[in-house]
Amino acid sequence: MLFEAIYHRPQDQYAYAYNEKTLHIQLRTKKQDIETVEILYGDPYDWNKNGWQTTKSKMNIAYSDQLFDYWFIAITPPYKRLRYGFILTNETTSSVFTEKGFYDQPPLDDTSYYFCFPYLNNIDVYRSPKWVEKTVWYQIFPERFANGDASLNPKNTVSWEGSEPTPTNFFGGDFKGILKNIDYLVDLGISGIYFTPIFKAHSNHKYDTIDYMEIDPQFGTKEMFKQLVEECHKRGIKIMLDAVFNHCGYYFAPFQNVLKNGEDSIYKNWFHIHDFPLQTAGTPNYDTFAFEPSMPKLNTENREVKEYLLNVGRYWVNEFDIDGWRLDVANEVDHQFWREFRTEMKKVKQDLYILGEIWHDSMPWLKGDQFDSVMNYPYTDNALRFFAKNEITAGQFSETFQKHLHMYPQHVNHVLFNLLGSHDTPRVMNIANHNKEKVKLLYAFLLSTPGSPCIYYGDEIGMTGEQDPGCRKCMIWEEERQDRDLLTFMKKLIYLRKTYPLLGNEGELTVLEANDDSNHFSFMKKNEQQQILIIINNNSTKQDIPIPLNLKDKKVVNLWTGNDFAAHASNVSVQLGPYDFAFLLFDA
Amino acid sequence: MLFEAIYHRPQDQYAYAYNEKTLHIQLRTKKQDIETVEILYGDPYDWNKNGWQTTKSKMNIAYSDQLFDYWFIAITPPYKRLRYGFILTNETTSSVFTEKGFYDQPPLDDTSYYFCFPYLNNIDVYRSPKWVEKTVWYQIFPERFANGDASLNPKNTVSWEGSEPTPTNFFGGDFKGILKNIDYLVDLGISGIYFTPIFKAHSNHKYDTIDYMEIDPQFGTKEMFKQLVEECHKRGIKIMLDAVFNHCGYYFAPFQNVLKNGEDSIYKNWFHIHDFPLQTAGTPNYDTFAFEPSMPKLNTENREVKEYLLNVGRYWVNEFDIDGWRLDVANEVDHQFWREFRTEMKKVKQDLYILGEIWHDSMPWLKGDQFDSVMNYPYTDNALRFFAKNEITAGQFSETFQKHLHMYPQHVNHVLFNLLGSHDTPRVMNIANHNKEKVKLLYAFLLSTPGSPCIYYGDEIGMTGEQDPGCRKCMIWEEERQDRDLLTFMKKLIYLRKTYPLLGNEGELTVLEANDDSNHFSFMKKNEQQQILIIINNNSTKQDIPIPLNLKDKKVVNLWTGNDFAAHASNVSVQLGPYDFAFLLFDA
Repeated sequence: MLFEAIYHRPQDQYAYAYNEKTLHIQLRTKKQDIETVEILYGDPYDWNKNGWQTTKSKMNIAYSDQLFDYWFIAITPPYKRLRYGFILTNETTSSVFTEKGFYDQPPLDDTSYYFCFPYLNNIDVYRSPKWVEKTVWYQIFPERFANGDASLNPKNTVSWEGSEPTPTNFFGGDFKGILKNIDYLVDLGISGIYFTPIFKAHSNHKYDTIDYMEIDPQFGTKEMFKQLVEECHKRGIKIMLDAVFNHCGYYFAPFQNVLKNGEDSIYKNWFHIHDFPLQTAGTPNYDTFAFEPSMPKLNTENREVKEYLLNVGRYWVNEFDIDGWRLDVANEVDHQFWREFRTEMKKVKQDLYILGEIWHDSMPWLKGDQFDSVMNYPYTDNALRFFAKNEITAGQFSETFQKHLHMYPQHVNHVLFNLLGSHDTPRVMNIANHNKEKVKLLYAFLLSTPGSPCIYYGDEIGMTGEQDPGCRKCMIWEEERQDRDLLTFMKKLIYLRKTYPLLGNEGELTVLEANDDSNHFSFMKKNEQQQILIIINNNSTKQDIPIPLNLKDKKVVNLWTGNDFAAHASNVSVQLGPYDFAFLLFDA
Repeated sequence: MLFEAIYHRPQDQYAYAYNEKTLHIQLRTKKQDIETVEILYGDPYDWNKNGWQTTKSKMNIAYSDQLFDYWFIAITPPYKRLRYGFILTNETTSSVFTEKGFYDQPPLDDTSYYFCFPYLNNIDVYRSPKWVEKTVWYQIFPERFANGDASLNPKNTVSWEGSEPTPTNFFGGDFKGILKNIDYLVDLGISGIYFTPIFKAHSNHKYDTIDYMEIDPQFGTKEMFKQLVEECHKRGIKIMLDAVFNHCGYYFAPFQNVLKNGEDSIYKNWFHIHDFPLQTAGTPNYDTFAFEPSMPKLNTENREVKEYLLNVGRYWVNEFDIDGWRLDVANEVDHQFWREFRTEMKKVKQDLYILGEIWHDSMPWLKGDQFDSVMNYPYTDNALRFFAKNEITAGQFSETFQKHLHMYPQHVNHVLFNLLGSHDTPRVMNIANHNKEKVKLLYAFLLSTPGSPCIYYGDEIGMTGEQDPGCRKCMIWEEERQDRDLLTFMKKLIYLRKTYPLLGNEGELTVLEANDDSNHFSFMKKNEQQQILIIINNNSTKQDIPIPLNLKDKKVVNLWTGNDFAAHASNVSVQLGPYDFAFLLFDA
C-alpha cells in the first residue's frame, strides 16, 4: 500500500457540501493499489457507554487518471457534523487513514484523530444557477457577427466580405445585425449568448473600456440593447456580458485625468502608479494588463473603484436584465473584490451566472464565495490534443478527462463553461487541420459531457481562422459559403443535448473504455431510469466496437441514427465508421 | 522517483503571499527520494524573440516528516505575477512537474502548462497583529483565579481552599481578585491574558451566555472590567476575551422568547428550529452545541443575529479596548459570518487578534479572510505524547512537529496559539504523571518554538487536575503550597523568550537531530547575526550529546545556565542531566 500516494484534506473537491444536507467526500490513492475503501464516520459528539458511535460505508472509485484512483461517497450526516477516517484494504494489508496519519486499527478512544467537516452551514454551500446546467451557449464577438446598420459603422469600416481582419480594422457588426439574425440562433437551438465586451471602447475587441456605463456607439443604443435582451428572453435565450474589471482602457476618463493632472489627480489611487509623471511608452511605470500601457490595471482594493465597478455590475443587471457576467482576466483581480461582487450581484439577481476567465486550476475561486464557474480551457486542451491533433492516445485523453472531473466539486463541473475555442484561440477547424469529421467528433464530445457548453460563432458553419486576428473573421451569411452539412449536424447535436438530459448534466458519469489500438473512447451516463452510452471512434477507419456491458434483452436506441435494436446476446458490438460516434440509450 | 508522492497546488501552504512582495512556494516529495529541486519560473507575459523568459532557482528542504520532504523557496516576482514548475532530479532520473503533469523537459512553448499564482494582490495577503508574535499568554478561568470581593459571591459559593470543583459549584473568582494579583502576573512576565467568558451566564464556566452585553455580576461591573483592562495595558499586558457565538445559553432572552411564544416569537429565526413546540428535554428539536439542550445553536446566517453579534464584537473592542477575541466552537459557525466578523473587527481595531477554537487542521479559516490563528491542539498532542506520556519516539515527535510546521503558511505559524493544556483538558502535570521535570521540559519546548505560547493559570506553580472539573481548581495563593521552584523556572523561561527573539518567532527553524536511542531532540533558530541551538534531553539519565555543527572558534553561551565556552575543536558535545535542556547562543 503506497501511503505516499494517499491524499485527503477536508476542503476543495475532497470534502464539500453538495447541498444543504449532503456532503461529498473523496479520497485519492495510487492507481490500482487499493481494493476496498470504507469510510468510518460519526457525529463528533455522539458518544454513549460503548464509546463513539460510528458507521462504516463502502466508497467507490469514481475516476482514475494516470497515477491515481479517486474514491467517492455522498453522506448525509443527521446533525450536519462529521468526523471520519478511511479504512483501506488491499491484498497484503489494511490501514486506517486519519488526519493524524496511518493506524493499523481505528483509534476509537478520541475523535480528534479523524478528519473533520465541522458543520454543514447552509450559507456556505456552493450554489450556481440551475438554468446554466441546461444552457447551450453561443459566443458572439459583436464587431464580427452581423452588420445590421451601416449608419453606425466606425470610420474606415472595411467591407464585410473579402476583407481580412487585422488587429485594428473594423467591419461594423452591431446589435441590429444580431436582431436580424435572431431566427438563425433560434433555429440553431442555442439558449444563451455570451457577448465579448459591448461597452464604449477604443479597439475592435472592446477589451479597453472607455466608459463602462455606455454601449459602444458602433453597436447601437441602450434601447437597442434592451430590445435585443428582450427578444432573446422571449425566445428562451439568456444573455451574458463581458466585464473587464482587471484593467480599463487608455481613454477611460479617470486614467485620462491622471495623465493630465498627475499626482494632483483625484483618480491617482484608482491605479497602481509607481511614480509620476506616467510613462505610457516603453515599460509603463504603473501596473497594467500584461505589459500593455494602454490597459492600466484598476486598483480594485480602492473603495471608490470598488463602488464604481460594483455599480457597473448592478446597473446592467438591473436595467437590462442580463443573466450573466463573464469576468475578464478574473484571476488577477483580488479575491476580496470578487467576494463583494458575488454578494452584490446575487442580491440584484439570485440566479445570475458569474463566470471567471481563468485558464488554470481555479479551485480558489470556486468555493461558493466567488465564481459559479470558469472558462474550462483545461477541458479544451485535452479534447483538442486527442481529437484534433492526435497528440495523445485514447488512454491519455481518458486519464486527463477523469483528472479534470476530479479537479472540482461535482456541482461545479455541471456549470463549467466548456469550449473548443474562442476569440483568444485559433478556431477548432484550423486546429483539426481542416478535417471536418474531427470537428464533428469534438462537438459531439462537447455536447455529451457535463458542463455548460459553448459554440464559438461560425464554428457551426465551418468557419476557419488562426489565432487572433484570424479567429475573429466576419460571420458568413451567404448560405452557399456556409457548411450546411455541419450546420445540420450541430443543430441535431444541440437538439439531442436539450432533449436527453442524460447527455448533459444528469446522471452519474462512468468512463467505460479508452482503447489505444482502435483509438476509441466510451463513457456512460446513468440515472435511475435510463443509461446513455457514448462511444466515439477517433479513427480514420471503421471499427467494430464491443460494448462492455450486458445489454441482453434490452432495447437499445442509437439517438444519433434513430436506429434501434434489441440485444439478444449478452455481448454486442456497435459498428462505427471513420470518426463516427453513437449515443446509445437504454433502460437502466 | 515516486511521482505519486509529489504534491503541489497553488493555494494554502503550498503557494501564498508572505507579504505584499514575496511569495512562498512549497513542494512535497517522498522522503529522501529527490536530490535537488529547482523551480523554473517567470512572468506569464514576459516573452521575447527567444520565447518565454524564465529563471531557475534551487529550493531547499525546510522540513521532513514520516513520509515526505517539504521543499521551500521565497520568490519576489517583479510584476507580482508568477507561472512556475519544478525540475526534480535524483540519481536515476530528472522530471519536470507542472500543473498538467510530468515531462522530461520543461515545455517552453506555452505557459499554460505551469502552475499559476496570477497576481499578488495586497488586500489578499494574510496579515496578523505583530504584537502577537511577541506575546506570552496566560489563560485565566475567572471563576477560579482569585476572589477579591466576597460581596459579589454567587449563592452557595464554597470556600476557596479545601473545596473540590464540581461541574456546577462556584468559588467566587472575580475581577478584583485579578487586579489584586496583577503584580504576580507582571512578575511572572506574561504579556497577554486570555479570559474564558466573562459575560452574564448561568454556569460557572460562562459558556452559556445570558447577555452578551453585560459582565456577569459575580465578576464585577463594567467599570471594574475597564479598570482591569487599563491596568493591564499600563503594564504591557494585552487582553483577549472569549466570544461564544456558535450558541447561546438557555436563559438568553431571545431563546426564552421563543420558548414562551413558540412560532409567534419574533426570534424564532435566530435559531435552527425543526418544529414547535420546543422540546428542551431529551433530544432537542432544534440545533444545539453537541446534544446540549441548554446551548441552542445561533442562526448566524440570519441578518439580525449577524448584526447583533457583530455589534457585540465591536462593543467590547470599542468601549473596553480589548485586544483579541477568542472564538468558541469557531469551526461550526459559517465562514461567511467569520469573514464579516473579521472585516468589522479590523475596522474597529486594526491589530485585533482573532483566534478561533479549532482543534483540527484549520487551513480553511487561515487564508487571511477569517482568523489570524487557531488554538494549536495538534502541537499540544504531539508534545504531550513525547515529553509527558513517552508514547512516541524522538523521531516520531520530530516528524509530527515538522508536519505541523508545514501545515500552514509560515506567518500563520508565528501567531498560532500554542498551549499545553486549557480548561478543556487535564493539566499538563497530571498528563506528565506528576513528573515535574517533564513539565519543565514541556514548557521549555513551548517557550522556544514559534507561535504565541500560553500558560494555563496555575501550571506555573505546579497545580494539578484531571479533565474538567478537575482542571478548573482554584488558584493557589499561599506561597507554601505553590511550587516556587517551578515558578522561578517559568519566570526565567519567559524572560529568555522575551529577551532573545530567536527563541521566539525570529529566524529560520531547522530540526537538527531526533535521537531514538538517547531520546533527545535538537533544533536551531538562525537569523543573519546569530543562532540558537535548542537541545532537549527527554531522558531520565544524563546524556553527552554531540553537537552536529562546526562550532570551532565560536563563543557559545548557554542562555539557561549562563555558562559560556569557546569551542576549540570542530566537534563538541554538551552534557545534559536527566530531563535537562540547553539554549546555546552563538554567532551565525
